[in-house]
Amino acid sequence: MSDPSAAKTNPGNFFEDFRLGQEIRHATPRTVTIGDVALYQGLFGPRFAVQSSDTFARAIGYRQAPLDELLVFHVVFGKTVPDISLNAVANLGYADCRFLKPVYPGATLNAVSEVIGLRENANRKTGIVYVRSRGFDEAGEAVLDYVRWVMVRKRDEAAPAPAEKVPELPKAVEPAQLGTGCPKIDAAAYDTVLAGSPHRFGDYRAGEKIDHVDGVTVEEAEHMIATRLYQNTARIHFNQFAESMGRFGRRLIYGGHAISLARALSFNGLGNAFHVAAINGGRHVAPLFAGLTVFAWSEVLATAELPGRKDVGALRLRTIATKDRPCPDFPFKDGDDYDPAVILDLDYWVLMPK
Amino acid sequence: MSDPSAAKTNPGNFFEDFRLGQEIRHATPRTVTIGDVALYQGLFGPRFAVQSSDTFARAIGYRQAPLDELLVFHVVFGKTVPDISLNAVANLGYADCRFLKPVYPGATLNAVSEVIGLRENANRKTGIVYVRSRGFDEAGEAVLDYVRWVMVRKRDEAAPAPAEKVPELPKAVEPAQLGTGCPKIDAAAYDTVLAGSPHRFGDYRAGEKIDHVDGVTVEEAEHMIATRLYQNTARIHFNQFAESMGRFGRRLIYGGHAISLARALSFNGLGNAFHVAAINGGRHVAPLFAGLTVFAWSEVLATAELPGRKDVGALRLRTIATKDRPCPDFPFKDGDDYDPAVILDLDYWVLMPK
Amino acid sequence: MSDPSAAKTNPGNFFEDFRLGQEIRHATPRTVTIGDVALYQGLFGPRFAVQSSDTFARAIGYRQAPLDELLVFHVVFGKTVPDISLNAVANLGYADCRFLKPVYPGATLNAVSEVIGLRENANRKTGIVYVRSRGFDEAGEAVLDYVRWVMVRKRDEAAPAPAEKVPELPKAVEPAQLGTGCPKIDAAAYDTVLAGSPHRFGDYRAGEKIDHVDGVTVEEAEHMIATRLYQNTARIHFNQFAESMGRFGRRLIYGGHAISLARALSFNGLGNAFHVAAINGGRHVAPLFAGLTVFAWSEVLATAELPGRKDVGALRLRTIATKDRPCPDFPFKDGDDYDPAVILDLDYWVLMPK
Repeated sequence: MSDPSAAKTNPGNFFEDFRLGQEIRHATPRTVTIGDVALYQGLFGPRFAVQSSDTFARAIGYRQAPLDELLVFHVVFGKTVPDISLNAVANLGYADCRFLKPVYPGATLNAVSEVIGLRENANRKTGIVYVRSRGFDEAGEAVLDYVRWVMVRKRDEAAPAPAEKVPELPKAVEPAQLGTGCPKIDAAAYDTVLAGSPHRFGDYRAGEKIDHVDGVTVEEAEHMIATRLYQNTARIHFNQFAESMGRFGRRLIYGGHAISLARALSFNGLGNAFHVAAINGGRHVAPLFAGLTVFAWSEVLATAELPGRKDVGALRLRTIATKDRPCPDFPFKDGDDYDPAVILDLDYWVLMPK
Repeated sequence: MSDPSAAKTNPGNFFEDFRLGQEIRHATPRTVTIGDVALYQGLFGPRFAVQSSDTFARAIGYRQAPLDELLVFHVVFGKTVPDISLNAVANLGYADCRFLKPVYPGATLNAVSEVIGLRENANRKTGIVYVRSRGFDEAGEAVLDYVRWVMVRKRDEAAPAPAEKVPELPKAVEPAQLGTGCPKIDAAAYDTVLAGSPHRFGDYRAGEKIDHVDGVTVEEAEHMIATRLYQNTARIHFNQFAESMGRFGRRLIYGGHAISLARALSFNGLGNAFHVAAINGGRHVAPLFAGLTVFAWSEVLATAELPGRKDVGALRLRTIATKDRPCPDFPFKDGDDYDPAVILDLDYWVLMPK
Repeated sequence: MSDPSAAKTNPGNFFEDFRLGQEIRHATPRTVTIGDVALYQGLFGPRFAVQSSDTFARAIGYRQAPLDELLVFHVVFGKTVPDISLNAVANLGYADCRFLKPVYPGATLNAVSEVIGLRENANRKTGIVYVRSRGFDEAGEAVLDYVRWVMVRKRDEAAPAPAEKVPELPKAVEPAQLGTGCPKIDAAAYDTVLAGSPHRFGDYRAGEKIDHVDGVTVEEAEHMIATRLYQNTARIHFNQFAESMGRFGRRLIYGGHAISLARALSFNGLGNAFHVAAINGGRHVAPLFAGLTVFAWSEVLATAELPGRKDVGALRLRTIATKDRPCPDFPFKDGDDYDPAVILDLDYWVLMPK
């Protein structure tokens, strides 16, 4: 029984509340269903055949159509928000994100984070918290593992700084780790006509750039419905009354919304990239707001064989999303600075049938 | 076979069409599924673990995650609209609302109402209709029982007034009636870390006030999607062409939308209030429109033991929702008048694990 | 393996790419679930008891509540867009659309089209393509069959014109073909109180006009969510950045959205028209945009017995949908021209219990 006089609302953790090695079990467990799949479909419009069709998925070796990996990511990420980033100033980065197991509708996901790094900033007002977060299914098996780091406010500037520890993180997930979340598939049974693209793994080359052509405008109702679906409680996404007086004057769209939009757009050019295996890193370069139109293009950074796998190969992709800016000329950086239209720079691995 | 020359559209009932004791079977039966659960999640963002997770629900004694009680309420309420309130001027109140049985996805709900009171107004243009409405599942078992009263137009001012009957209604549902909709749970198996709040029944005291802190802005698409989900056909929610010439100049949001928003916001401070057992009364103090931001706070009006139940206790809550007005100072009334920001005054019972 | 230097994005087919007799297997197969049903319910608000309630559907002879026929239509139609109409200037018409089999949640739908007519336009810039499209379930059984014709751009004006072939199409589907998609029902078990209307087949007369009374305003989020649900990729619906510079200055709503809205509105007056059996023809008379309010009215064009069926009869309906224009006076045409408020003129068959 807790102290009845204590505040009942969750203030979130401040920088000085985190301890190196601390393990945080997050609320709220969530059974993800075909209801969520339909809503994700309506909000983003993905067309990857494996996630769209039980029949297609079974034909190549899945038990049924798995959940979109990004839906799994958003649900797990959402759980970490009340404990990790409620008092965050900025979400600084992701690394070493691996999808470890196909997740099917009906799975119940929960999440646990470990604090793996801490560094107070020179101004003593904020610090950087590094956490490794893991998503688990109802059998207790890990389905997702990733690191993110966020800049978190201190409650009290005078609170002593913790011992500094900045974890070493891989620049990219190794190819040997990419196959875990994808069952061995029957690549011959993978029907590229039904899948909507004739291009298999062997058709892509490092350095190749693809404009995904289409654009999609975002509405307030859409991003709020999506973000609530993940039980992500970050206040900046939902409260126009407060945000009207804030830095942007409007609600900021959850960064993961742009990732899902870019992934759905990338079907046009990467139609057989049926599985997101890992995210090497991601940067939300600029904020996205309702009323803007998102475009995307991708560059194949590398191609890789998976040790012991003849069914699939991996493409390392950089996908750039922009706002109100079509991408036929692949806008990216001018020197060190991003093109002002860029909102997302995502480095990740996808699997394709051979 | 009906008269082929009769109008085929439903004009709704007018005051003089109701008869004391009349029983009205409502259309349309509705199978409520995990699809509805997902949409409800996306629209309101509840985080109560019991409704969110099959695993959590089973661990404490449910068959699986039950439907949110308010989703059940809205679906049953929606069925009554075409017969009871299509010609209503105002929805005046609710009383004696009891959730009688856990409802699981897949249940098919229908509704029946009985006219339990009638009183013509002095102006002879309108009258008040009191109905007891019951929701039933496919096995014919009652899942919900509540009284509401509405002011309904007369078709013909000259129609004779019925004998006046105003039913006596309880100010609050008795604690002995609160356990019906909640199976006996294993309170020790209720994991407060996973549930997201350390505070159990014993941590709350009568008189305690809790600001739920967060705010959520409502969009037109959201409230219309929700209200159609319940097959609620009240015209004022959907038709901007007509409403632009009406009293408010815009679509009025279904009052139940504010109830669901307030309930979801109340998680922050009442995270273990996992079951809405009864609604003692509710008042839609002022209309809500799209673009406004809803906040909420609650007062614990009373705590109660349930006879024969050691697993759960009941909190009687008053939850106040406001528009564009944060609630750190608990805005309520100035004398007899509500604070102008208040939109909802809801008096209800929730159950919490001991 | 395709040519790695080839463009990876889908340019769609141009007029000269089509060949008479050509068969096109479309991507992406799609498992349609109760999640989609819930979202369709939230977006359109249909109240036909058969599609709403497993219990009601079983009582009259269905296996369970079938998918709304129009949801099946939209999903199949959506699949044809990337191959047939990505470069279309206009969607000219539908004919001979027949719903062949009840489709239940869990079915996986795919689509195949055959080019049955080609005619280059005199300007040599465009041509008309006639396709017969068929939707199939996971067992390979046809569930839907329809013809549509679209005006498609040529890639190269100098490309030679194909041999002209304009298919003969029926003005209306024959009554003998209307029963395929509806199991033999137990009309006595069809409960008109639960269904929400007392009017059976015998209560309607050819020539009868019904104003469906209600109006519903459309939001951008709603039509985009719906259209993505169908995986319909037509760009004009999603990209405000491009459309702001286009013909209308705004996103055009998918024509099928108006059909679903009109069908849902038609419940008020046609509540027992539980099955859409066929679409004889349809014309999207004028574009629909977000913010406008849709109204509808219907005329019974004909009534028909189904050979060998005593359980149901068919009504041939013309349903007219308008924007920002109530329909008590049944707006239709002034001479040859449609009333400027009309957006949809749909000629179709519904079944009703006897």
